[in-house]
Amino acid sequence: MDKLLQDPNQFVTDIVDGLVRSHPDYYEKVEGVNVIKRKDGTPSGQVGLVSGGGSGHEPAHAGYVGEGMLSAAVCGEVFTSPTPDMVLEGIKAADGGAGVLLIVKNYSGDVMNFDMAKELAELEGIQVETVIVNDDIAIKNAEDRRGVAGTVFVHKIAGAAAAAGKSLSEVKKAAEKAINQVRSIGMALSPCFMPESGKPGFELHENEMEIGIGIHGEKGIERKTVAPVNEIVSELLDRLTAEVTDKRIALMVNGMGGTPISELYLAYKYVSEQLEQREYSIARSYTGNYMTSLEMHGFSITLLAVDDELLGYLDAPSETIGFPVRSE
Amino acid sequence: MDKLLQDPNQFVTDIVDGLVRSHPDYYEKVEGVNVIKRKDGTPSGQVGLVSGGGSGHEPAHAGYVGEGMLSAAVCGEVFTSPTPDMVLEGIKAADGGAGVLLIVKNYSGDVMNFDMAKELAELEGIQVETVIVNDDIAIKNAEDRRGVAGTVFVHKIAGAAAAAGKSLSEVKKAAEKAINQVRSIGMALSPCFMPESGKPGFELHENEMEIGIGIHGEKGIERKTVAPVNEIVSELLDRLTAEVTDKRIALMVNGMGGTPISELYLAYKYVSEQLEQREYSIARSYTGNYMTSLEMHGFSITLLAVDDELLGYLDAPSETIGFPVRSE
Repeated sequence: MDKLLQDPNQFVTDIVDGLVRSHPDYYEKVEGVNVIKRKDGTPSGQVGLVSGGGSGHEPAHAGYVGEGMLSAAVCGEVFTSPTPDMVLEGIKAADGGAGVLLIVKNYSGDVMNFDMAKELAELEGIQVETVIVNDDIAIKNAEDRRGVAGTVFVHKIAGAAAAAGKSLSEVKKAAEKAINQVRSIGMALSPCFMPESGKPGFELHENEMEIGIGIHGEKGIERKTVAPVNEIVSELLDRLTAEVTDKRIALMVNGMGGTPISELYLAYKYVSEQLEQREYSIARSYTGNYMTSLEMHGFSITLLAVDDELLGYLDAPSETIGFPVRSE
Repeated sequence: MDKLLQDPNQFVTDIVDGLVRSHPDYYEKVEGVNVIKRKDGTPSGQVGLVSGGGSGHEPAHAGYVGEGMLSAAVCGEVFTSPTPDMVLEGIKAADGGAGVLLIVKNYSGDVMNFDMAKELAELEGIQVETVIVNDDIAIKNAEDRRGVAGTVFVHKIAGAAAAAGKSLSEVKKAAEKAINQVRSIGMALSPCFMPESGKPGFELHENEMEIGIGIHGEKGIERKTVAPVNEIVSELLDRLTAEVTDKRIALMVNGMGGTPISELYLAYKYVSEQLEQREYSIARSYTGNYMTSLEMHGFSITLLAVDDELLGYLDAPSETIGFPVRSE
């Protein structure tokens, strides 16, 4: 698989540079490390938010840095946890004096390294709390569930709470409420290819699809022949609606990176139709590339059970590349 | 190539339905035809704007329907001009009593069918003007140049002029100014695949790229071995800067549909660096999927020479899916 690439060894650095160059008024790169922060910094007295992890999920997470969402994003190598030192730089960049919340996707390397960074930051006198996002229901055991596209809703909700001047414990509580109420599942038609090796992250043959795939190409629930999208949606929603039983929801139809917009809206048609048939009320919807996996072709569905508080946070103003200013 | 697809024969209808379903407060489908219009209609006394053409370029053109941009978009079958009757429906939907401007990409079928629709609309008493966008410099002869991603700037500029209450001739003049000052060129690493046949639109082998490709996979300037992105950018900018000699520009780095966001920002780094080396001043920049070609993997660069008037139009408020609310 060919890529737009200069040097595989500086793939992430080039992306980070490109993001900062494209938004010089909004972004700043922390000197010497692939951490992007708000140029204007976290307003004094406001809780700072840090997320990140391996790269390859763009616009996550750097694309959610900005007013009303993240204060800083830590950009590890492709599909590789950032080091504790990098995360510490993110925490220091995000600190506005009211503490910092870490929003971590549930992967063992991320959890471990963000936790070590938390300890280092606390030694420097910064108050740090952590939430772990585990929205991927393709894994049966809740403890092992991966963090995927639902993480973007957590960024938005925690970011809006922080921007509203809430305390660290209140922001953490809002994030945890979102985490408890959000579930996702994805599928892929084609694999992604690692920039360093040029090799596919996993094998997936023509006319084959993987249901329940992870955002790094992790094995899902089953592999089978490609079906019409209506059938794919039906299978994904059978699983999701078993877990999200509140009927008032925010819906995200997320592209995996190589999926054209046309197919995402095509999928949206069937997702929304079937949710209505199941008597769900779609209070807000978001269609686009939010949490990707390099050039993987596929999509995921995220359902977030909402109440007025969460809708208020979703609708609150934000200024980022990745999250739409208004709900769709 | 596998796709997210229900029925190849209703691919475009499904996309249009998905778009309208995802934005029920903003969009309306014209009864029985794949034309999307602003739900609130063109404000009375304001010039209406219509664009469109073959589908497969999403978010173009329906994604640019909304306040401050298009009044209606006519969505033909994939890479196929809409019929004059369809365009007429778009014109009627867009008419707010002050005339309608058609923004047409320079393809013979589009030019012919939009022109026939113009005549039909005039018979119904609607005043109609047309502008033809021909920004693709891969074609040497200016008359034969195709309309590509620069069309999006024309939508924005004409839309802002219309929203500012300008007359039909003034809006046309603003659009023509943009057209005269915008140039684009693209490249692809992989072909797109037609939904009806599942066949590639053209052949492009692994480790081969096409420089100067069109948004329907039309032949470009040359086909060669994939090079590092810096070299690709250098070749594209050699050609573009020969044509856009004013140094104050708006820059668009546009994905072709299957290009991940990561690679677009990576490309942006080298495009912006090289433009600065060539002493261009990037007044505004836009990176993303604006004018695509199904799942083609590649990108295009668009340069628009700007002055304060055009910058004002680019920055004017708009509310659409496809165009960012603020410049990046």
